[in-house]
Parts: sequence; C-alpha cells; structure tokens
Amino acid sequence: MDSKDNRNFSMNGGHGAHSYVKNSSYQGGVLEAAKAIIEEEIATKLEISTNSICVADFGCSTGSNSFPAMQAIIEAVKRKYESSGLKTLEFYVCFNDVVSNDFNTLFSSLPPDRSYEVAAVPGDFHGRLLPPSSVHFAYSSWALHWLTEVPKAAAGRHSPAWSGGESLYGVEREEVYEAYLSQFERDLEAFLKCRAVEMVEGGIMALLIPSLPNYWDPQKEFTVASVTELLRSSLVDMAKKGRLSETKLEAFNFPYYIPTPEQVWAILQKSNSFSIERMEIMKSGTLLTVDGHVACFRAVHQNMLTHEFGAETIDESTLVVVAVLKHKNA
Amino acid sequence: MDSKDNRNFSMNGGHGAHSYVKNSSYQGGVLEAAKAIIEEEIATKLEISTNSICVADFGCSTGSNSFPAMQAIIEAVKRKYESSGLKTLEFYVCFNDVVSNDFNTLFSSLPPDRSYEVAAVPGDFHGRLLPPSSVHFAYSSWALHWLTEVPKAAAGRHSPAWSGGESLYGVEREEVYEAYLSQFERDLEAFLKCRAVEMVEGGIMALLIPSLPNYWDPQKEFTVASVTELLRSSLVDMAKKGRLSETKLEAFNFPYYIPTPEQVWAILQKSNSFSIERMEIMKSGTLLTVDGHVACFRAVHQNMLTHEFGAETIDESTLVVVAVLKHKNA
Repeated sequence: MDSKDNRNFSMNGGHGAHSYVKNSSYQGGVLEAAKAIIEEEIATKLEISTNSICVADFGCSTGSNSFPAMQAIIEAVKRKYESSGLKTLEFYVCFNDVVSNDFNTLFSSLPPDRSYEVAAVPGDFHGRLLPPSSVHFAYSSWALHWLTEVPKAAAGRHSPAWSGGESLYGVEREEVYEAYLSQFERDLEAFLKCRAVEMVEGGIMALLIPSLPNYWDPQKEFTVASVTELLRSSLVDMAKKGRLSETKLEAFNFPYYIPTPEQVWAILQKSNSFSIERMEIMKSGTLLTVDGHVACFRAVHQNMLTHEFGAETIDESTLVVVAVLKHKNA
Repeated sequence: MDSKDNRNFSMNGGHGAHSYVKNSSYQGGVLEAAKAIIEEEIATKLEISTNSICVADFGCSTGSNSFPAMQAIIEAVKRKYESSGLKTLEFYVCFNDVVSNDFNTLFSSLPPDRSYEVAAVPGDFHGRLLPPSSVHFAYSSWALHWLTEVPKAAAGRHSPAWSGGESLYGVEREEVYEAYLSQFERDLEAFLKCRAVEMVEGGIMALLIPSLPNYWDPQKEFTVASVTELLRSSLVDMAKKGRLSETKLEAFNFPYYIPTPEQVWAILQKSNSFSIERMEIMKSGTLLTVDGHVACFRAVHQNMLTHEFGAETIDESTLVVVAVLKHKNA
C-alpha cells in the first residue's frame, strides 16, 4: 500500500464549532439538486441480480452530507425492487475517505434508524480499496476536484484554481493551467480505473463535481474560483503584514482543480469501462449567509492551510456537474 | 439496526500512557501461543476458490494485537497458495469492534508495509455485520467473553466472573452461575449464527477465548478470575472507605463470563454450521510485571468502570482456549 493517502486535507473532524459536521450544509445543498436525477437513473437503469447491495461513498468526510445521500440511494433501490415484492434487500454502505479523516465522528453520528450495515474504508480513492465486483452503486460528491499532488509545472506559480483571472497571463498561465488539467485528468482516470474493477457490471456511479462555466468572466460571475481568489487575496494581505511567509505563499498552490463541464465530459467519455448515461450542470443548492460560507470554507480548508501556513478562513459558491455513469457489460 | 452495541466497554483509545495500544502486550502473547495452530490449520484445511480473500477480526480494539494476527493469517494463506505459483492473492481485512471503539487510532497505526486493504466495521458482533458469503477467515481473540448484557438473575448478586470462590455459596451462587453461563451460551450462539451467514463454505474461524480450569481451586491457582477477584477486593475496600457507593457496588456485575474449555466445547459442537477442527488449551503467553498487569487491566476495564464508578485498576493472567472451526459445506 502506498502512503500517498496520508495527507493533510481531511475535513475538520469532531462536532465542534469549526467542524465539517456543523458547517457543511452548503455541500448538502448539492445533493438536493442532484437527488431527483439519481433517483430517476436508479429507477430506469440499475440492474442487480443479488439481494445484498453495496453502496460506496468516495470522499465521505465525517458523514453529515453522506448519510442523506446514502439514504436517498437506498430508498430509490428499495422502491424499485421491494415495491414489486420481488425481493427483500440487505444494504451495506462503504464510507471512504483519506486515512486521516475523523471516522470516529462518522460512526458516532450514524443515523440510528438506518437500514444498512456500515464499513469505513480508509485510503486514497485514486487507488484500489475494495474487492473486485463488490460495489453496486458508487457515489462521490465534492471530492474528485482534490488532486493527488500539485502538478510540478505549477510549483511556485499560481494555480488556476485561485488565479481568478489575475496574477498570471499569457504563456505562463496557459502552462500552469494545462499542468493542472492534465493532473486532474490523470487522477480522474485513476479513480475510474479502480472503480471499474470494484463495481459489478451494470452498476451505477453518480459523480458530483464542482465546476466552472466554460466561458467565465471573473469580473461578472461569482464561482467557486472567485471564492478561492478571495482566500488568495487574504493570504497576500497577511503576507504583506508579515503574518505569514511570502516565500511560502509564493510556493503554495491549492491541491485541487475546478474543471469545466466540457473537460469532465471529455475525460469521462474516454473510459472503456463506463458509459455516460446522463450529465447535468446545476447551480448548487443551499444559500448561505457570509458567515455560513466562511464557516464551511474553514471546515474544508483548515487542515490544509494549517499545514501550509497556520490557518485562514473564507467563503464559497459554485456550479456542480452531476454525471451518472453505468458500468458497461464486458 | 439496534443500538445495543453503543456500550461503554470499548478498550482505551489513543496512544497515551493508559491506552490499549501501549498496554496490551499481554493479550498479544495469546497470539504467539495460538499462531502455530492457526498456521497448520490454514495449511491443511482452508479451501478457497477465489483470489480475493477477506479476513475479519471480531473485537479488534485499536489494532495493536490485531495487526500481527492478521499478518500471520495472511502470510499462512500466501504460503499455501502463492508458493505453488497457483495464484496471486488480494487481501481485505475487516476490523470489527463496538461503535465507540477508537477506529481513528487503528487507522493511524496501520502497518505501512501491509499487503492488504482495510475496512472498519463498527457494531456488535452478536448481530449481522457483513454481506453473506463474504468472509474466508474469521478471527476473534479475547473478545467473546464479553456479554451483550448482565443476566437478569445476577442483578445485585456477585457474578461468577469475580466471585473467585468466596462471597456466594450454595443455591444462590449456582443460580447466578447458571444465568451467566446461559447468557454466554446465547451470545456465542448468536455470534456463530451470524458468522455462518457471512462466511463462505469451507472458510475457517479461529476463536481465542480466555478460560478457567474445569476444576479450579481459587486458593491454589492464579487465573483471570483471581485477578477479577483482586479488582473486586479493591472496589470493596474503596466502598468501605467511602470512595465509591456501596449501593452501586452491590448492584454491579461484570459484563463478561470466563467459561471452562468444556463449556466452550459443548456450545461449539452444537452448531449445525461449523465443525470443530481442533481445540487446544494453552497457558497464555507473555509474562508481565505487576505494573504491566495493572496497566493492561486498566486499558481494558477503564471505560466500563469509569461508567459505573469513576475508575479503578488491577492485573490479570489466564488460560486460553483456541478453537478452530470450519464452515461446513451445505
């Protein structure tokens, strides 16, 4: 096993004031937007021949957004198979996140009335995690934009995830952008390759990925990258005031990439193992106050920023791509 | 899902001075004693027809004794199948313990050079936890003596686990003893029933259970029950000094039962799903100093005693029954 997954960007653990549990309702809004799509796809496309169903969430954090998603998926599968009286189903949910994720909090928060057994699967989802042909429905929300590493070409330059239209122009910006995009592509392909082994044929995968508009004018439209730009500005201001190292800030790049829907489509359609059944672009759900945005951003970024600098906070908002894939029959 | 598993007797978490990780080398000695038996049984009895092997440890605590056991099992399976060049195997280990167990510590302590993927499965092992026919080798060490509840007939009377030959005599003692034994029997049967569903046919189960001699003179022989008796004495002394409530102490019984090897055999041989391939009685391994015993006892009992009284410590030593069962073909 490699140790790549022992990274610092797990979400904030526990149930405290700055925890992911308390501050992630924004990302919960993403599910509300995608739920109807997932339910329709299960009703019309899922084909299973067993009564023991495994659902896996890749990038579950401490569970507060994962539990309602798992519940929605399970209810949809039950409606399809149990209403017809065909079978009684058993459900098993595998919650995956990096090794440093706070799984104790996930376990202590499990819905008491859940109708499934639970397993936590720690590790980097860009590698193999589960037995072959063991997963019937794979889900990942707001997780696939995290990269396994900052691309080398970007070292010491600003990443597109937070350049927000300023700082980098011309050839250099283009190079950095390409380096990020190709890292994102390699990582998403690695994810798909592993899931292709782990999923049963005919299984369904729903991916919810934050995205940028194909043509984006940072001056006119507020996106997740605008928010990252706000964080960059704060860090720059802090460096000017001597509150963090300018050298460190120069060398820092965010370890995530926010793709456009077209880029996601281009990568997904290259897969030999999955067919794209549906892909939709939606404005993400929950409206938060400024304080709410700040708290959410902190719950997500604190571990990474503390590791780099010593902590900072900010807010966010974005588009989401919902892609529903089906594992092809061999 | 029931909530029975949300109990207070998980082992001490973390890596601190009183943690199970730091103080459980005594229970690790149990594995040393049983390892050769397990390896022989795998070499001669295990029959598997897949190259994807699932090993499950029921009652793993924070992993310090589980990791070497899982490693020994996996190495034995590899020696059997890979040396012949027949196949390359993939291993998956399911670590089970109660929901309140410190799985974060288990994850952060995982051997970096392990050759298996990991899942944590939280919940009471007297209920169903894993998919049908998914486990090839089941293991449980020093865990099956814990009861799902203190039997009602014992309420307010001393349990046999700590009566140690004094305190209870005649009819009343007999009744309490029978109540404990029959609770132990119900619990072990529930465990076997669930594992019978979860294990593949031909799969092997190794159970390591602390035990008492069939005929035991508490005055002459030091056993795990002697140690519990020492703890009882301490609690009684503390109650006399007013440091804990006498009423609470009167009502307290340990939620575990230490069986004799004959009792274990009688329960196991009644199973329709498993055959007893081998059962051995061994003096358990590691010799500890008095301080070592005290530290180990504290790591195991602290959560339960803190819940009941507010904490106390003591030491232990015992026999272990090693039973190797095979899942019968239908």
